[in-house]
Amino acid sequence: MNFQSLFRSTAAVCAGFVLVFLIPTGVALFYGERWLAFGVPTGILALVAMAGGLYGFRPVKPLGPREGILIVVITWTIACLAGAVPFVLSGATTSFADALFESASGFTTTGSSIFSDVESLPRSILFWRSFSHWLGGMGILVLAVAILPALGIGGFQLLRAEAPGPDVERLAPRIAQTAQVFWIIYAGMTAIETGLLMFGGMNLFDAVNHSFATLATGGFSTRNASIAAFHSPFIEWVIASFMILSGVNFALYFRALMRDFGRIRDDSELKSYTGFLLTSIAVVTVSLMAGKSYAGFGESLRYATFQVATLATSTGFATADYTVWPGLSKSVLLIALLLGGCVGSTSGGVKMLHVTVLGKMIGRQLRQLANPQAVIAIRINRKPVDDRTERSIVGFVVLYLMVVAISTIVVASSGADLETAFSASLAVIGNVGPGFSQVGPTLNFGFLPDYVKIVLSAVMVIGRLEVYTVAVLFLPGFFRSW
Amino acid sequence: MNFQSLFRSTAAVCAGFVLVFLIPTGVALFYGERWLAFGVPTGILALVAMAGGLYGFRPVKPLGPREGILIVVITWTIACLAGAVPFVLSGATTSFADALFESASGFTTTGSSIFSDVESLPRSILFWRSFSHWLGGMGILVLAVAILPALGIGGFQLLRAEAPGPDVERLAPRIAQTAQVFWIIYAGMTAIETGLLMFGGMNLFDAVNHSFATLATGGFSTRNASIAAFHSPFIEWVIASFMILSGVNFALYFRALMRDFGRIRDDSELKSYTGFLLTSIAVVTVSLMAGKSYAGFGESLRYATFQVATLATSTGFATADYTVWPGLSKSVLLIALLLGGCVGSTSGGVKMLHVTVLGKMIGRQLRQLANPQAVIAIRINRKPVDDRTERSIVGFVVLYLMVVAISTIVVASSGADLETAFSASLAVIGNVGPGFSQVGPTLNFGFLPDYVKIVLSAVMVIGRLEVYTVAVLFLPGFFRSW
Repeated sequence: MNFQSLFRSTAAVCAGFVLVFLIPTGVALFYGERWLAFGVPTGILALVAMAGGLYGFRPVKPLGPREGILIVVITWTIACLAGAVPFVLSGATTSFADALFESASGFTTTGSSIFSDVESLPRSILFWRSFSHWLGGMGILVLAVAILPALGIGGFQLLRAEAPGPDVERLAPRIAQTAQVFWIIYAGMTAIETGLLMFGGMNLFDAVNHSFATLATGGFSTRNASIAAFHSPFIEWVIASFMILSGVNFALYFRALMRDFGRIRDDSELKSYTGFLLTSIAVVTVSLMAGKSYAGFGESLRYATFQVATLATSTGFATADYTVWPGLSKSVLLIALLLGGCVGSTSGGVKMLHVTVLGKMIGRQLRQLANPQAVIAIRINRKPVDDRTERSIVGFVVLYLMVVAISTIVVASSGADLETAFSASLAVIGNVGPGFSQVGPTLNFGFLPDYVKIVLSAVMVIGRLEVYTVAVLFLPGFFRSW
Repeated sequence: MNFQSLFRSTAAVCAGFVLVFLIPTGVALFYGERWLAFGVPTGILALVAMAGGLYGFRPVKPLGPREGILIVVITWTIACLAGAVPFVLSGATTSFADALFESASGFTTTGSSIFSDVESLPRSILFWRSFSHWLGGMGILVLAVAILPALGIGGFQLLRAEAPGPDVERLAPRIAQTAQVFWIIYAGMTAIETGLLMFGGMNLFDAVNHSFATLATGGFSTRNASIAAFHSPFIEWVIASFMILSGVNFALYFRALMRDFGRIRDDSELKSYTGFLLTSIAVVTVSLMAGKSYAGFGESLRYATFQVATLATSTGFATADYTVWPGLSKSVLLIALLLGGCVGSTSGGVKMLHVTVLGKMIGRQLRQLANPQAVIAIRINRKPVDDRTERSIVGFVVLYLMVVAISTIVVASSGADLETAFSASLAVIGNVGPGFSQVGPTLNFGFLPDYVKIVLSAVMVIGRLEVYTVAVLFLPGFFRSW
C-alpha cells in the first residue's frame, strides 16, 4: 500500500469537494437561508485539502488497484459524512443518523428519504438533495478525474473502482478526456430536460431539481407527492423518457457523438434493456387494465410506463402508489427493482449486462447437458466473453444477493415485516429508493431505528460501488503490503 | 433420440410402479378402506407395462444423455399423475388439480398440502402420502435401477438426470449395486427412526409414516398439528436429529460403511452444512430468548433446532408457528428455506455444495481484484474444482432463482401478497413445504386457484430434478436427432 500517494489523492479529492460545496452555499445565500449549514463543511474540507496541498496533490507513483479502491471508498465516505452536515446545521433534522441516511441516499442516487414533509424544508436543502444525486450519478471520481489534472495518473484505477464497467476507460485517448466528455453529455441532457420540464409548466427551481434527480436516476423530489404533485401527463412522459435514457450506458451516447452507430445497433445490453422494459410495461399495463385500476388503456399505459421506468432505472420517482396495484404488477416491479439498468449508466441494480451474461451462461449449460461434447462460447456485442469476465459477473451477482440477505436480516431484526425488510434492502442496494409495504412510495424510511439507517446507508454505498470495491476491503491482508 | 429404447425403459419403469402401487393397495385392504382407489391406477400401469413388455424392457442400445433426461421427466410425470388418482377415487378430494398438487408434493418430498384436516382422511391415503415421500426421497429411478435389471444399461444417465450430484455413480463398481446400497442404508435408517419414535410413545402407523416423511425430508404428517400434536420433546429431538441426518449426502454413509472416515472428515460440504445449522440455531435461539417467545433457554433451543432443521433440510414438519416469531428468526429461516441440505441427500433447496462453491468463487474474485495477477484455484474436498463444474453450479443457481421469480409472478397473479407468493415459490421449488404469511406452517395451499396449483406442482418437480433436467427440454431442437 502506497500511503503517500493515497494521502495526496485524497487531499486532491477534498479540494474538489470544496468547489462542489460552494454551489449550495451560493444557493443558500441567494435564497437568504442559513448559508453556514454549507459554509461549515466547506471550511473543514478546505482545511483538509490545504493540509494535503502542502505536500502536493500529485501521487508520487501511479496508483495500484488497491490504492484506487481505497481512495474511492474514502471519497464516498467523506462525501456522505460531509454531505450530512448541512441537514443537521440547517435544522432539517436533529439526528445525525437521519442526516447520514439522507446524504448517502443523495450521493448514491438512491432517493430513499427520512423526511415525511419535504415541502417544509429550506430550498437550499432541497437543492442539496438533488445536487448530491447529480454529483453521485455520473460519479464523484469521474468528476474529480475530469476536473483535477492531478488525478490523471492512476485515474483509470479510480474509475474502475467507482463503477466497474466494460471499456469505459478506452473511449478517448486520455482518461481525463473521457471523463470530461461523459460529464458534458450528462450536463447537456440535464439542460435539455430542464427546458422541457419548464415548457411543461414547472418553475426553474423544480425543473432543475427534477432534472438532476432524473439524469442521476436518483428520485428525490421537491414535492411530498413526488411527480404526482404536478398533475401533468406531459411532465410524466418527459421524466419517464429521460429516466429510460439515463438507464442506458453513457458510452453509447459517446459513440453516437462519434457517429459509431454500428456499435450501438449491436449492443447486446441495449437489446436486453429495451426488451425488458417493453415486456414489463406491456405486462403491467395489461394487469392494470384487468384490475380496472385506471380509466382505460391510455392511463394504464402511462402509469405502467412511469412506474416500470422509475423502478427499472432505479430512480424512484412516484406517480402512483403501486403497493395497491394487482399482485402481478407488483411482482414485475419487484423484478425491475432487482435488475436495474445498463452498466455505465447512472442506474443501479444488478444491471442488464450481467443479467444477459447470466442468461447466456444458462443457455450454454443446457445445451451442454443435452450434448456433453459441445463447446459453446458466449458472445456479448459479437465478441466472446472470457472466463475472467464471466467469473467476475457471477461473483458480483452472488455478492449482491448476499448483501441483500444480510441487509434483510438487519432490517427484519428491528421488527419490520419481511416484505418491508426484503424490498427495502433491494431498493437500497439497487439505489432505487422506495420499496413495498412499510417503505412504499407514499411512505418513508424515517420510522426505522438509527442502527438500521446507518447499515442501510452503508448498503447504499456498497450498491453504488457495485459491491466488489467495498467487499475487497474485508479481505484478510488487504492492508498488508503484498 | 432413440425412441425405441426410450419406450422400453418407460415400460420397465411402469412395471416398477405396479410393484409400488401394490403396497398401498394392501394397506387399504388391511384397513378395510376403498382399495380400488389404488387398484385402478395399478391396473392401468400394469396394462402399460404389459404393452411394453411385449417388445422387451431392455434398451436396444445404451441410453444417451437426452434419453436419460426424457425418461426421468416422463417417470416423474407418470408418478405424479398416477399418484393423484387415489386422492380422487378415495373421495379425499373432488378436484384433480388438488389431487395432482398433493401427489406431486408427495413424490417430490415437498410436503405442502391442500388438505386442512388430514385427520379425517382414510389411513390408506395418509400412508400413501408418506409412502410417496419415501419413494421420491431417495429417488424413483434410483429405486428402479436398484430393482430392475433391465435398467442397468444406461442407469448412469438416469441417476445423473434425477439428481445431479458428484461421484454418486462411482461408489460401487456397478451402478445397480450402488443404487441397492443407497436404498438399504435409507431403509435401515427409516427402521431405526421408527423404533425410536415407538419408544417415544407413537403407535406403529404414526411412527412408520413420520419416519418415511423424515428420511425423505418430506413433511407430510398424519396429524393436523404436525409434530406439535405429540407434545413430546423426545419425539421432537428424534425427528430433528433424523432430519439433519437425512440432509447429509448419503454417499458419506456409504463411505462410513466402508470405513473411509478420512473422506468424511475432509468433506467441504459437510463442514458448511453443520456450520450453517449451528450458526442458524444459535441466532434463532438467541432471537427467541430476546423476544421472550418461549420459557427459557432449553425450550428456545428445542424450538429453534427443530424449525431450523425442518426448513434447512426442506422437510417442513412443524412444532411451532414460526410466522409469529421475531423478524430476525424469520429471516434466518427464510435463508435456510433457500439454501437447503447437501447434494446427494434427500433434501431440496440450492444445496450446500453449490453455496460453498459460490462462496469460494467470491473469495477468489475479491483476491483477484486486490491483486490482479493472482491465479487462485477453488478447492472442494481438497481437489480443485474445474471450470465446467463451476459453470454448471452457477447456471443451476441462476436457473433456480429464475424459476422462483416466474413462480412468484404466477402465484402473485392470483392476488396473493408478495410474502406469500415469494415464500410459497421458495418452499415449493426447494421441496420444503410450508412458507410464510398465507402459506405458513399452520395453513395450507388449498385456497389457491387451480392454475396456480398446477404450476406449483410443476415447480416441485423442477426443484426435485434440480432444474436442469426439466429446463433442457425447452431447448430448441432437443427432440431433433443431433
